[in-house]
Amino acid sequence: MSLLTDLEWRYATKKMNGKKIPQEKLDYILEAARLAPSSSGLQQYKVIVISDSALLERIRLVAYDQSQITDCSHLLVFAAWDGYTDERISNVFNYIMDERGLPHETMDGYKQVILDLYERSGQEWQAHHAAKQSYISFAMAIAAAAEQKVDATPIEGFLSEKLDELLNLKGSGYKSTVILPLGYRESEQDWLVNMKKVRTPKSMFITEMTMADASTDVDLPAPMNLDSFVQK
Amino acid sequence: MSLLTDLEWRYATKKMNGKKIPQEKLDYILEAARLAPSSSGLQQYKVIVISDSALLERIRLVAYDQSQITDCSHLLVFAAWDGYTDERISNVFNYIMDERGLPHETMDGYKQVILDLYERSGQEWQAHHAAKQSYISFAMAIAAAAEQKVDATPIEGFLSEKLDELLNLKGSGYKSTVILPLGYRESEQDWLVNMKKVRTPKSMFITEMTMADASTDVDLPAPMNLDSFVQK
Repeated sequence: MSLLTDLEWRYATKKMNGKKIPQEKLDYILEAARLAPSSSGLQQYKVIVISDSALLERIRLVAYDQSQITDCSHLLVFAAWDGYTDERISNVFNYIMDERGLPHETMDGYKQVILDLYERSGQEWQAHHAAKQSYISFAMAIAAAAEQKVDATPIEGFLSEKLDELLNLKGSGYKSTVILPLGYRESEQDWLVNMKKVRTPKSMFITEMTMADASTDVDLPAPMNLDSFVQK
Repeated sequence: MSLLTDLEWRYATKKMNGKKIPQEKLDYILEAARLAPSSSGLQQYKVIVISDSALLERIRLVAYDQSQITDCSHLLVFAAWDGYTDERISNVFNYIMDERGLPHETMDGYKQVILDLYERSGQEWQAHHAAKQSYISFAMAIAAAAEQKVDATPIEGFLSEKLDELLNLKGSGYKSTVILPLGYRESEQDWLVNMKKVRTPKSMFITEMTMADASTDVDLPAPMNLDSFVQK
C-alpha cells in the first residue's frame, strides 16, 4: 500500500458504527501526529484523546450534533498554544538542546529573532500560527489512520470557545483547533461513502512558473540568513 | 515501509545537492497534495511548482538566503485563497455536484451557512482559515516525499508579501502560505542531518480526558446539525 492508495481510500466518514479500534492502531496514529514537523520544531500543540461516552455526548452538543462524535472509538482534539512567550519557547528549545547534548545558549540568537517576529505580529496572529502547525500534525494523523484502515472525519465544525470551556482549556495556554473522530464506517447509513471523491483538476491545482511569469519589478531585500542565528 | 518509518527518516534538510528528482516522484508528491482533505472540500489553495534557477535565485533573496531554495530540484509554493466569496465557493461546489451528477442546489443551504460564518469572522480570519487548509495539503506532500525517499524542507521563513509580488500573486485571490523545496540531502554539509530528532515526549503530547476532567458548568447550545443543510 502507499500513501496515494490510502488517500484514495479515506473519506470524511459521515456515519460510524461505534466499534473500538485496537490500542496499537490508536498508538500508531498518535505517534504519527507526534512525529509531524512544526515551525522551528516547537510542537506548539498537543492532542487530547477522549473515549468517555458521557464526555463525547457533551462534545457532540458543541459540534453541530455530528453523530461521529459519539459513534467513534476515540476522539482526538488538537489544541495549540494561544500565543508565544519566551518561557514557552525556551522550555522546548532547552529540552531539544538537552536531548542533543548541546548548550542551551545554542538557540539564544535564533530564539530572539523569532520572538521579535512573533511579538510584532500580535497575539491573534500567534494563535493562528500555532494552530497552523497543529494542522500538519492533524494531517499526519489522518494519513496514519487511512494507512491503518481506520476511518476518520476531519472536523472544524464545532464551537471552539465552548469546547475549550468544556475541556477546561481556558487559562491552560491551549485552544482547540480541529477534532478527529476515529472509528469505523457504517456504510449503509453513510450518505457520503459511495459519492465520487472530487478534487480540483490537476490543471487548476498545479501551476508551473518560470522567470517569464515572475515580476522583475520587486524591490528585493539584502540577504539575511536565519540559520546564522543558530550557534553551530 | 510505513508512514511512521517515513516520518522517522525525514528531517528538515538544511543542505541539498542540486540533483533532480524523477518526474514520476514529483507527480506522486503533487498528487498526494491534491488528494488532501480540506474544509467543506473547498480546496481553497493551489501549488505553484518552480524549477527555473533564475526564479529560484530571486526567491532565495526573499527567503532568508536559505540554500535549499536554489539547491533543490523543485520548489513547491503553497498559496491559499485570500478570502471567501459566494462566487469562489459556488464554483467549487458546482463542480463537485456536476462530478457527482447532483443538482447545484444541493449545496445551497450549506453554502449559506458557511458564507454567513465566514462573513462574521472577517477577511483576516478567512485568509488564516484558507491557509490552514493548505497546511494539510503541505503535510501530505511532506509525507509523500518521505515515502518516495525525496528530501524536503518545510519552510515558513520567507517574506510572503515579497514572494506574492515576485510570483505576481497580488490581485490573483491567492496568498503564499508555506514553501517546500524537494531534492536530495548533501549530508556532509548538513549540520542537522546527524542530530537526534527530538519531539515532545508522549506523556506531555498526549492527554487522556474523561468526564471527571471536564467542566460541568458550561452553558451548552441547542443542537443544530450542519449536515441537515445539505439536501440529500
